[in-house]
Amino acid sequence: MELPDVLTMQDALARLAAYWGEQGCLTVQPMNSEVGAGTLNPATFLRVLGPEPWRVAYVEPSVRPDDARYGENPNRIQTHTQFQVILKPEPGNSQELYLGSLAALGIDVAAHDVRFVEDNWASPALGAWGLGWEVWLDGLEITQFTYFQQAGGINLDPPAVEITYGLERILMALQGVRHFKEIAYTDTVSYGELFGQGEYEMSRYYLDDADIAANRSLLQLYAAEAQRMIDAGLPVPAHTYVLKCSHAFNVLDARGAVSTAERATEFARMRKLAGDVARLWMERRAELDHPLGVCAPVAVPGAVDVDLVPRGPEPRAFVCEVGTEEMPPVEGRAAAGQLARELEARLAATRLAHGRITVRATPRRLVALVEEVAAREEDQDRVVKGPKAAAAFDAAGNPTPAVQGFARAQGVEVADLVRQQVGNAEHMVLVRREIGRGAPEVLAGVVEGAVGALRSGRNMRWNDPKLAFTRPIRWLLALWGDQVVPARVSALVADRRTRVLRTAPAPEITVGSAESYVETVEAAGIVLDHADRRSRIIEGARALSAGVAGHVDVDGESGLIEQVAFLVEQPTPLLGGFDESYLSLPEAVLATVMRKHQRYLPVRGADGRLLPYFVAVANGPVDADLVRAGNEAVLRARYEDALFFYRSDRETPLAVMRERLTRLTFTDRLGSVAERADRIGSLARRLADEVGLDGPDRAVLDRAAELVKFDLGSQLVTEMTSLAGTMARDYAAHAGEPAAVAEALFEAERPRNTEDALPRGAAGELLSVADRLDLLTGLAATVGLPTGSSDQFALRRAALGLLGVFRRRPVLAPVSLRAALGMAAQLQPVPVSAEVLEAVAEFVTRRFEQQLTEEEQPVDRIRAVLPHADRPYLLDRILAQLAKQVEQPGFQQLTEALQRARRIVPAGTPAEYDPGVLVEPAEVALHDALVLARAGLGDAPDLDRFVEAVGGIVRPVNTFFDDVFVMVDDEPLRRARLGLLASVADLGAPVLAWEHLRM
Amino acid sequence: MELPDVLTMQDALARLAAYWGEQGCLTVQPMNSEVGAGTLNPATFLRVLGPEPWRVAYVEPSVRPDDARYGENPNRIQTHTQFQVILKPEPGNSQELYLGSLAALGIDVAAHDVRFVEDNWASPALGAWGLGWEVWLDGLEITQFTYFQQAGGINLDPPAVEITYGLERILMALQGVRHFKEIAYTDTVSYGELFGQGEYEMSRYYLDDADIAANRSLLQLYAAEAQRMIDAGLPVPAHTYVLKCSHAFNVLDARGAVSTAERATEFARMRKLAGDVARLWMERRAELDHPLGVCAPVAVPGAVDVDLVPRGPEPRAFVCEVGTEEMPPVEGRAAAGQLARELEARLAATRLAHGRITVRATPRRLVALVEEVAAREEDQDRVVKGPKAAAAFDAAGNPTPAVQGFARAQGVEVADLVRQQVGNAEHMVLVRREIGRGAPEVLAGVVEGAVGALRSGRNMRWNDPKLAFTRPIRWLLALWGDQVVPARVSALVADRRTRVLRTAPAPEITVGSAESYVETVEAAGIVLDHADRRSRIIEGARALSAGVAGHVDVDGESGLIEQVAFLVEQPTPLLGGFDESYLSLPEAVLATVMRKHQRYLPVRGADGRLLPYFVAVANGPVDADLVRAGNEAVLRARYEDALFFYRSDRETPLAVMRERLTRLTFTDRLGSVAERADRIGSLARRLADEVGLDGPDRAVLDRAAELVKFDLGSQLVTEMTSLAGTMARDYAAHAGEPAAVAEALFEAERPRNTEDALPRGAAGELLSVADRLDLLTGLAATVGLPTGSSDQFALRRAALGLLGVFRRRPVLAPVSLRAALGMAAQLQPVPVSAEVLEAVAEFVTRRFEQQLTEEEQPVDRIRAVLPHADRPYLLDRILAQLAKQVEQPGFQQLTEALQRARRIVPAGTPAEYDPGVLVEPAEVALHDALVLARAGLGDAPDLDRFVEAVGGIVRPVNTFFDDVFVMVDDEPLRRARLGLLASVADLGAPVLAWEHLRM
Repeated sequence: MELPDVLTMQDALARLAAYWGEQGCLTVQPMNSEVGAGTLNPATFLRVLGPEPWRVAYVEPSVRPDDARYGENPNRIQTHTQFQVILKPEPGNSQELYLGSLAALGIDVAAHDVRFVEDNWASPALGAWGLGWEVWLDGLEITQFTYFQQAGGINLDPPAVEITYGLERILMALQGVRHFKEIAYTDTVSYGELFGQGEYEMSRYYLDDADIAANRSLLQLYAAEAQRMIDAGLPVPAHTYVLKCSHAFNVLDARGAVSTAERATEFARMRKLAGDVARLWMERRAELDHPLGVCAPVAVPGAVDVDLVPRGPEPRAFVCEVGTEEMPPVEGRAAAGQLARELEARLAATRLAHGRITVRATPRRLVALVEEVAAREEDQDRVVKGPKAAAAFDAAGNPTPAVQGFARAQGVEVADLVRQQVGNAEHMVLVRREIGRGAPEVLAGVVEGAVGALRSGRNMRWNDPKLAFTRPIRWLLALWGDQVVPARVSALVADRRTRVLRTAPAPEITVGSAESYVETVEAAGIVLDHADRRSRIIEGARALSAGVAGHVDVDGESGLIEQVAFLVEQPTPLLGGFDESYLSLPEAVLATVMRKHQRYLPVRGADGRLLPYFVAVANGPVDADLVRAGNEAVLRARYEDALFFYRSDRETPLAVMRERLTRLTFTDRLGSVAERADRIGSLARRLADEVGLDGPDRAVLDRAAELVKFDLGSQLVTEMTSLAGTMARDYAAHAGEPAAVAEALFEAERPRNTEDALPRGAAGELLSVADRLDLLTGLAATVGLPTGSSDQFALRRAALGLLGVFRRRPVLAPVSLRAALGMAAQLQPVPVSAEVLEAVAEFVTRRFEQQLTEEEQPVDRIRAVLPHADRPYLLDRILAQLAKQVEQPGFQQLTEALQRARRIVPAGTPAEYDPGVLVEPAEVALHDALVLARAGLGDAPDLDRFVEAVGGIVRPVNTFFDDVFVMVDDEPLRRARLGLLASVADLGAPVLAWEHLRM
Repeated sequence: MELPDVLTMQDALARLAAYWGEQGCLTVQPMNSEVGAGTLNPATFLRVLGPEPWRVAYVEPSVRPDDARYGENPNRIQTHTQFQVILKPEPGNSQELYLGSLAALGIDVAAHDVRFVEDNWASPALGAWGLGWEVWLDGLEITQFTYFQQAGGINLDPPAVEITYGLERILMALQGVRHFKEIAYTDTVSYGELFGQGEYEMSRYYLDDADIAANRSLLQLYAAEAQRMIDAGLPVPAHTYVLKCSHAFNVLDARGAVSTAERATEFARMRKLAGDVARLWMERRAELDHPLGVCAPVAVPGAVDVDLVPRGPEPRAFVCEVGTEEMPPVEGRAAAGQLARELEARLAATRLAHGRITVRATPRRLVALVEEVAAREEDQDRVVKGPKAAAAFDAAGNPTPAVQGFARAQGVEVADLVRQQVGNAEHMVLVRREIGRGAPEVLAGVVEGAVGALRSGRNMRWNDPKLAFTRPIRWLLALWGDQVVPARVSALVADRRTRVLRTAPAPEITVGSAESYVETVEAAGIVLDHADRRSRIIEGARALSAGVAGHVDVDGESGLIEQVAFLVEQPTPLLGGFDESYLSLPEAVLATVMRKHQRYLPVRGADGRLLPYFVAVANGPVDADLVRAGNEAVLRARYEDALFFYRSDRETPLAVMRERLTRLTFTDRLGSVAERADRIGSLARRLADEVGLDGPDRAVLDRAAELVKFDLGSQLVTEMTSLAGTMARDYAAHAGEPAAVAEALFEAERPRNTEDALPRGAAGELLSVADRLDLLTGLAATVGLPTGSSDQFALRRAALGLLGVFRRRPVLAPVSLRAALGMAAQLQPVPVSAEVLEAVAEFVTRRFEQQLTEEEQPVDRIRAVLPHADRPYLLDRILAQLAKQVEQPGFQQLTEALQRARRIVPAGTPAEYDPGVLVEPAEVALHDALVLARAGLGDAPDLDRFVEAVGGIVRPVNTFFDDVFVMVDDEPLRRARLGLLASVADLGAPVLAWEHLRM
C-alpha cells in the first residue's frame, strides 16, 4: 500500500515510550494474558495499591471481544493498542506532562483544541474507580485521564494518575486516514496489511465461533484457580486468573451468552476476587517491607514572610481564586455557590466590614470577589466576669483573696477591675479592649476555612495531604487590594499568581491587585462569567449558522449550551459540516451523536429539519481550520459507523433481526430475549381480549405483537441502545409495515423514563404494559424484587411506567393490576406463586403511593384512595373527585356522619339488621334514608355519585344520634340498631377508606 | 538498592528495538497469552511461513514453569525476557547485523570472544526446526541464532533467520552482577525489586500450587477449541489455543504430572494442531494474495568479464576456498574430505595435468590446494566413426551417398576422412584434433561441480536459490596462479576476495595468487590447518597449566581438543580459574560442566585430581583479561548453581528424595517413578532368591533395593540427568550408607550406553537387570514395543543393557530371560499377557542376534547357538566352545556324522526304537555307541563335553551307513533303524542347532 509521509504508529509508540522514560517511567511489557485494558495489567492494578512510588509506561494491546467487527468497521477493532502511563504519587503537573507527550508526538497543542472533558471511570468487576477526563483533540477522544481512587475496593493512598492513550484513534487523526486499516504502521506497512487477517479471524471467533460451553467451563476453572491462589495467599497468580475470568466472561458476552442475572453474579464474583487479590497484595508488600520504598508526603510549605498589616486604612476589594483542574460543569457551578456561601458565613463571623460578594466559575477556577473590604475589624470591648462585688472586698475595704486571685489570673491589678451588673448580681469585671485584626489576617482565616470546606457531589483525593474535591485544586490566589492574603490550606499557599490558558504565551501570570484581577485575567483571554460565555456561544452559533441559512434552536439546546459554557474558558464557536448523505440517517441518530457524544449544536433549516452543519465550541485561540477539520472527521467517523449499521440493518429482514433475539439471553431462568418478546406479544393480546379491543386497532396490535423488540437484534440499537423503539419504527416502516404498526413498536418502549411521553395508541399501550408486567413478574419470581438502592433490572422504573399507562389511559381502566400480573405470571417459564404475585402488587402499590406523594397529594387523601391502587385509573378519578369534594361543606358533614356511625360500632359488627325490630322514628327514618341511598349507588366506585346518593343520609344520622340511645338492654333492639349503623358506615367503604381522611 | 552506573535493562531493550528498527524491522508486542519462547508468537510462527517478506523485532517475556526457582536461583527464572528478531528473507549478512546489535549494546566485539557455536533447534510440538548456533560471549550463551527451516511441518521458502537474545544473561554479564535480582532494570530500580515477588509467587503456582485436575481440564478445553477453529478454517484463533495448550502442558509438566506416555500423546496432538494451523495460514495468505507481497529471489549475477585464457604457459598452483558461516566441527571435517574427493574425481575427468591435492578446513572455510596445475589441457585426437569403408565408395571409387552424408554432417570433405579399423570392421573415420582448454576454464567447471555437490549430514537452505549445505556458503575464492577462476555456483561468483576474522581491521582481504593464498590468509591470523590449531591448543594448554603446577590430560581430552580445534580459526588458549571451594563438588559434576557445557579443558594436578583451573580457547586476538573474566563468571555461575543443588541435596535425607519420586509420573498406566523403583527393588530381591544370593551381598542388595533411583528426586540430577547413579553413590555415602550399598546404587544405572562399563557387584547387577526387565515388560504391555526408528523409551538400549549383564555375569547364568521377564510381569500394575511376554523375549533375542552380528560372529554359528538366547551366559560359552571346536578335524567329522543321520530321517520320525529288532553288527555297534555317548552327556548344555561324550559315535555312524541299508521292506526293522538314526541326530539338539552350521 502507498503510505503518506507521516508519523507512523511504530514511531509514535517509540516516542511515547521515550518521552515517559525521560519522565522517570519504567517500561514494562504488556500482560501475557488477554486483557480488556491496560488497567488490568498488574503494573497498574496491583502497583497502584499501597504506599510504594510507581511510575510506569507500557503498551497494552487491549482485547474487547464485543468490539469485534471482522475488520470492516473503520473505527472498531477487537484488539486496540493502548499506551498506559501510571504516575504515583501524582506529581501535581500531570496534565502538563501529558500535554508534553502530545508535543512529543508532534501535535501543536496551541493550534489544536485539546480539552479535558469530564469522564469518570469505574470498573465494577475490579472494585475500582477514579475521577478524570477523556481528553479531546478537536472533538476526538484520544486519551482517558483518571485520578485513580480505589482498586479492589481499597482506597488508594496516595492516589495515582492513570493516562491511557488510544493509539489507533490518535494515529488516524494525525495521519488523516478514515479507516484503521489505512494507518501507516511503518513507512512500508499498513495496519491493515499487518493486522487485517487477525482482526477478521478473531472477530469470527468472538462473534460466531467461540464454543459457549467451553468458555463457560474456562470461566469456572479460572475462577476456581483464582480462589485457590487467594486461599494460598498468592496474589500474583490469583490476579492472572482473575484476568482470565474477565476475558472468558467477555467472550461469552460477545457471543450473547450472558444473561443479566449471570452478568451480575459474575461481576460480583470478580469483584470479590479482585478485592481479595488487592488486599493480599497489600499484605505481601507490607511483609516485604515495601521493596520500592514509600512515597514521601507532599511537603507542606513552611511559614512565609508576608505582611499581615494592612498597608493603608482604606477599604479595598478582595479576590480569592481557587484554581483547579477541569471541573465537571455541574460541579463547577455548584462549587461556586458553595464558595459564596462559605465566604459569606465566615466573613459574618468576623468584624470585618465588607460590600457585595460575587462569584464566578469557569472549568478551571472558582472566583469570589468582595467589594469594599475594610482594612481592619472594628475594635470591641470584651467583659470578663469576676467575683460578685459583694464578695470582693472585706469589711475593711481590702480586696478579698477571691478578687485578688481573679485579677492575678487576668494579669491585671485589682484596681483595673470595675463593677458591673451581670444577671441578677453586681460583679467585679475586667473590661478588655480588643483591637480589630487587619484585613489580610482576617481574610486568611476566612479563605482557609472556605477553601478547606469545599466539597463536591463526588470528591477525589490527589497529592494534597488533606484536601478532597471534585478535581485537584492546584493554586490559590488571594488578594486584598494589592496585598497577598497569607492563607495556607494544606499544601496550598495563596499568592498573586494565577494560570490562564495552558496554551497562552505566558500560561502563568501575576495579578497586581484585587481590583485589577478581572481585567488582568480577562486580558489573558479567560471569560470569567459563565453568562458571558453563554452569550458568546449563542451569538457565535447564531452568526455561524446564519451563514449557512440555518439556525440553532437556542431554547431547545439550552441545557447543552449551559454545559458547553462550563467546558471552556474562552469559547470559540466554529462551524463544521458533514456530508449531506448522512442526512439520510434518522434525526434521532444524528442528533444523539452531535449532542450527547460530541456536544455540538445541531444547525437546523427554516423548517426545523437538520442541516448538514454543526457548531462546535473550542477553547481559546485555536487554528480554526485545523480544529474544524478534526471535528468534522470525528463526526464523519461516527456517522459513517452509524450509516454502516443503519444500511446494513435496513437490508436485513425484520424477521432476521427478530430471530437474532433467540441468541440473546435475557436471564438464565427466563430464557432468551426472543422468548421474552413472545411473552410480551401474547400478554398484550390477552389484555386486548380482556378490554375488548377489536377492529383496526386489534389488527395493528396483532402484527406489532409479532415484531415487538425486533430492533434489539439490529446493529444500530446494539450500538446505541437508547434508540430502541425509535429504530423499530424506522425499520418497520422501511420494511413496508403499516404506519400504525411501526408506531406501536415505537410506543411499546415508552415511557423510557419518568420524563418520557406515554404511548398514545391502544396497541402501543398494551405492548408497553405487557413488557413491564412480564419484567416484574418474571424477575420477582426468579431474581427477586429490588431491595435497598440496587435495582439492576430497573424494576422500579418498570413499575412507574406500568402505572403511567394504567393511570392515564382509559383503555386499561377495566383491568385490575393484580389480574394483569396474574396473566403475565401464567406466561412465565417458571412458576410464580401467589405470594410472589402479591409481593409484586404490593411493590407496585408502594411506587404508586410514592408517586402520588411526589405529586404533592395530601397524605390523608392518598391513604383514603389507596385501596383502589389495583385500578390506577379509577384511583386517579376518585382522587380528583375527592379533591373537589373536600372543598364542599356537605362532603365534610357526610364524612363526619359516616365516621360517627363507624366510631360507635364495635369491630366485627355485622352490617345487617331486622328493620321490623326498629321502633323509634329517628331510626326508622335512618333506615328509610339508607334504603334510598343504596338505591342511588352504582356498581363502580364513584365519589361524586356516592355523595349525591348518600348525601341525604347526613341529617337522619344526626337525628338518630340525637334521639336514639343505641346501647339499650333490649338485646334484639340493640343488635338491630348497631346493625343499622354498621350498614351506614359500610356504605362508603367501596369508595374511600374514610378513616384516613383528616377533614 | 544502590545500583552501578551501567547499561540498564530498560535501555538495553530500547537500544535493541531502535537498532533493529533501523534495519527495517517492525516492532510488535509480546503475545497476550503465556508462551515459552518468542518463536511461538504468531509474529514468528505464522509469519515465517510462505513467500511474504517479514522483518520484525519484539520483546517476549517467556514463561517456563519448569525453570521456576522461587527467585532463589541466581540464573534461573520462570519468566525470562527474550528479544526476538526475524529476518525473512535472510539478508546474507545476518551474522554481521547481529554483531552490530551487540555493538549497539556497547559491547566491544573485538575485545570479547564472540563465537557461533553449533546449536540446532527443533520443537517437536511445533513441527519446527532450524540449524544455527548459540552465540557465546566469553563462554556465556547470550543468543540463539537459527536459520529457521520448517514450521508446522512445512518447509520455509524462503527460510528466515531467527535471533533470540536472552536479556537477563546479557545484562548480568554486562553489569557484572551475580544474581538476576541484582540487574539494574533502570538506574533506580533493580530487577529483583521489580519482579522478585512475581518470581516467587508464580514459582509457587507452577511448582506447588497449580491444580492438576484444573490444568488438565484446561488443556483439553484448549485443544478442543484449537481443533474447532481449525475445522472452521481460522488459523489465528486456532494458533492462540495451540499456545494455551502448550502452556497448560508446561504447567502440568512442572507439577510433575505428565507421564512419558502422556507427553508423547500431547506432543503428537500439538504437532498435529500446529501443522494444521500452519497449513491453513498458508492457504489464507494465498487467498488474501499475500498482503505483504512476495520475496524477490536473490539475484543470480550476470556474466562477468573474466579472462579465460591462461596468462602464461607454466603450471601454476590452484586454490579454491569455500567460505561459510561457522560449520559444526563434525561437518567441517567431513566436508573437507568431500571437497577433496569431488575435486580429485572431477579433475580426473579433464585432461588437465596437476600435482598433489591437499585440503584444509576451519569453522568458516573449506580450502583445496592443488599443486602444479598445467596451463592447458593436453590436446587430443578424437575419432568420429563413419560408414564402413566397404560401403564408402562404389565400384567406380566414387563416394557413396552414405559417406557423403557423413562428411557433410561433420562439416568436412570426404577427402578429409581416413580409413581406420573400428571393432571388427574398417570404417571411414574423421580424426578431430581437440585443442585443450585453458586452466581457468577447466577449473571453473571443476569448482562449479564440486561446490554444487557439497552436502553435509544435515543440510539447510538459506537465501541462495539452489544450494543446500550444513551452513550458508557466503563466498567463493578460486585462483589459478594469479588468475581468477571464473566459477559461478548458483548466486556465488568466484573471485580473489576472502574473509578473515570478523574482528580484524580488514575483515575482507584480497589474495594475489594461489601460491600466496596460504601466506596471505595466515598473515591475517587464520590458522588453516586443523593439526596446527590442535598443536597450538595443546601447547598453549600445556604451558598455561604448567604455570599453575598442573597439566591437561591431552590423551584423555583428545576428543574435546579435536572439537575445539574446529570451533576456532585462530586458537587463543587462556587459563581461567575458579574458587577452590567448588572442588567440593563431585568430579563428575565439575568435569561435565567444563567439558560438555563449556568446552574447557580441565587442569589436573600430579595426582590426576582436578585443580581449580581450566583452559578455555578463544578465537583470535581478544582482550585476554576481559575474556578470562567472562569465562570465569560463566563457570562460577554454573558451579554456583550446581553447588546450590548439591548442598541442598546433601542436606536432604535419602528418604525424602526417595519420597519425591511418588510425585514424578512414570507413565499414566505404570504409575509413579516411586512405584517403578519399588518394582525394581522387589524384582531384584526375587532374582536374588532365584540365584541363591546370600551373606553380605544379600544385605547390600536388600538395602540398595530400598533406595534404588532415589537420586532422581535430587535437584542436581533433575538438572543434569546424566549424573543419575553417580549422585546416588555420592549422596548415599554422605548419608552414611555402607560403601557397597552406595556402589550398588551407582551400578544399578549401568550400563548407560553401549560404551559404558557393566556393573561388577552382585547387588548392582541384579538391580540393573531388574530395572531393564521392568521397563521392557511394563512398556510392552502398555505402550508397545518400538517399531521403526522411534524408540522414545529407549527399549532397545534397555534390551542391550539387560543382555550385557546376563551375558557377562555368571551370577545370572541360572536364570532364563523368559523366567526373569515373567517375574517382572507379575509385578506390573497391568496384566501382561503370555503373547506380550513372548514378544518381549523375541525382541530381546533379535537384539542379541544383532549384537552378535556386530561382534562379527559368523552367521552360521550365531544361528547354531541362538536357541540358547534365553540363557545368554550359556550361549556365549557355547559360542566360544564352538569357535574352538570348528578348528578341530574331529568336530567337523562329528558334525558331518550327525548331519548324515539327520538328513536320512524323515521329519517327524520319533527318536525311539526297539534295540532288540536291530540285527546288523554295524547297527548294533551304533546302538552301543549311542548308549555310551548318552551316558557321557551332562545336564547342562556344554559343547566341549558333548564333543568328548559323543565324539566316539563318528566311526559307528559311518560304518552304519557303509554296511546297513535303512529302507528295507521289513517294516519293524526299518522303523527301528530310522529310530536309531533319529536318536543319533537328536543327541546334539540340546547343544546346537547343527543344521545351521556351515563347515
